[in-house]
Amino acid sequence: MPIDLTIRLLKRSLNKPVIVKIKGGRLIRGILVGYDEHLNLLLKDAEWVYKEDSDPIGSILLRGDNVVLISPT
Amino acid sequence: MPIDLTIRLLKRSLNKPVIVKIKGGRLIRGILVGYDEHLNLLLKDAEWVYKEDSDPIGSILLRGDNVVLISPT
Amino acid sequence: MPIDLTIRLLKRSLNKPVIVKIKGGRLIRGILVGYDEHLNLLLKDAEWVYKEDSDPIGSILLRGDNVVLISPT
Amino acid sequence: MPIDLTIRLLKRSLNKPVIVKIKGGRLIRGILVGYDEHLNLLLKDAEWVYKEDSDPIGSILLRGDNVVLISPT
Amino acid sequence: MPIDLTIRLLKRSLNKPVIVKIKGGRLIRGILVGYDEHLNLLLKDAEWVYKEDSDPIGSILLRGDNVVLISPT
Amino acid sequence: MPIDLTIRLLKRSLNKPVIVKIKGGRLIRGILVGYDEHLNLLLKDAEWVYKEDSDPIGSILLRGDNVVLISPT
Amino acid sequence: MPIDLTIRLLKRSLNKPVIVKIKGGRLIRGILVGYDEHLNLLLKDAEWVYKEDSDPIGSILLRGDNVVLISPT
Repeated sequence: MPIDLTIRLLKRSLNKPVIVKIKGGRLIRGILVGYDEHLNLLLKDAEWVYKEDSDPIGSILLRGDNVVLISPT
Repeated sequence: MPIDLTIRLLKRSLNKPVIVKIKGGRLIRGILVGYDEHLNLLLKDAEWVYKEDSDPIGSILLRGDNVVLISPT
Repeated sequence: MPIDLTIRLLKRSLNKPVIVKIKGGRLIRGILVGYDEHLNLLLKDAEWVYKEDSDPIGSILLRGDNVVLISPT
Repeated sequence: MPIDLTIRLLKRSLNKPVIVKIKGGRLIRGILVGYDEHLNLLLKDAEWVYKEDSDPIGSILLRGDNVVLISPT
Repeated sequence: MPIDLTIRLLKRSLNKPVIVKIKGGRLIRGILVGYDEHLNLLLKDAEWVYKEDSDPIGSILLRGDNVVLISPT
Repeated sequence: MPIDLTIRLLKRSLNKPVIVKIKGGRLIRGILVGYDEHLNLLLKDAEWVYKEDSDPIGSILLRGDNVVLISPT
Repeated sequence: MPIDLTIRLLKRSLNKPVIVKIKGGRLIRGILVGYDEHLNLLLKDAEWVYKEDSDPIGSILLRGDNVVLISPT
């Protein structure tokens, strides 16, 4: 029975690029360099992703309760 | 008296296709490959489902508090 | 003094048709086949209910925090 | 110092008509036949109340976190 | 260091008129006749307050999580 | 490592004017005369602050979960 | 396995400029002078950041549940 699903999945994505959809619908892409059990995410080389381009943000701490979904890219 | 309804139901859907309606109304279809008691869901071959077509996303971790309902397809 | 109101009420509706109003205002009708203390509901033969018609969904797990009210039909 | 205000008040309204305003602004009127400490309410002969008329719903379980206020009628 | 600020303040307003602003922006005026630590409020002679007039509601139990602010009038 | 940041900061502002931005974007200015660890705030001489004027409210208890930010003026 | 991600990251940014995106989409820039485990942030020399200019606020306590993301500038 899956326990700690969140942690196991995020561990597999560590130091790899992920896309994160946040509440309100916007997308952030970055390298996952940290996380915790609340789904707080630490991303480097992060950028807002738009339909046809993107906008760099740098390193970010994303508060977990804003996360809708996370996907390896 | 049903206890752990969520876990029992999700167990039956493991490795099978499910449709998930998230807050805001959008639909995601994918193969359920993991879950936990918070309704965090791990889907593979996921895609956004629209009225007449769909848009692939790949593997995703969907945060449980965004889930409205889950249905086997 | 009513304790476990939720559970007692849902028990009486088990295997019977119920209407559920969810946040945002939409209505779902289905046969209640499971529930838990968070008001997570398992419905079979579920369908979206509109003013003049309905749209089948099948079996669903409805996450309790989306529920506004439940009514036997 | 008032403790269990909710329970004491609801007890006085048991088996009497109440009006409930829910989030989003709509009004429900019904006979209060059950409640718990989360403000989950069990109403019979419930109806949606509009400015000039009303629309019957029957018996309902109203989830407490949707309640704004309760008033004896 | 203020502890139980809520309770102390409400105690001073007991049996006195208060104005309560609720989420969404509406105002309720009434005599505070009860409260608890969740800011659930029991008001008598309550009324909706508008710019130029008011609309009586009677006795109400107002659920604390809808409260924005409370002010003696 | 900062612990009880909230309490330490509010202590320094006690009996001094503060501006509070609440959810939805409105501003309240007043003298901070009490607070607790939930960021419930007790203000006297409070007023709604608009771009070019203000509107007095008097003494208020502001429920902490509506607070976005607090600033000494 | 990252534990206390939030605290570790904020520690590295102490006394340095950060940009904070809050719910609703607005941006605040300031020097991070305090924080706690709820992501409550104490900023000095804070300012609202707009596309082409900014608007000073001074010192602020920002309640953590309004935070979407934090980024060193």
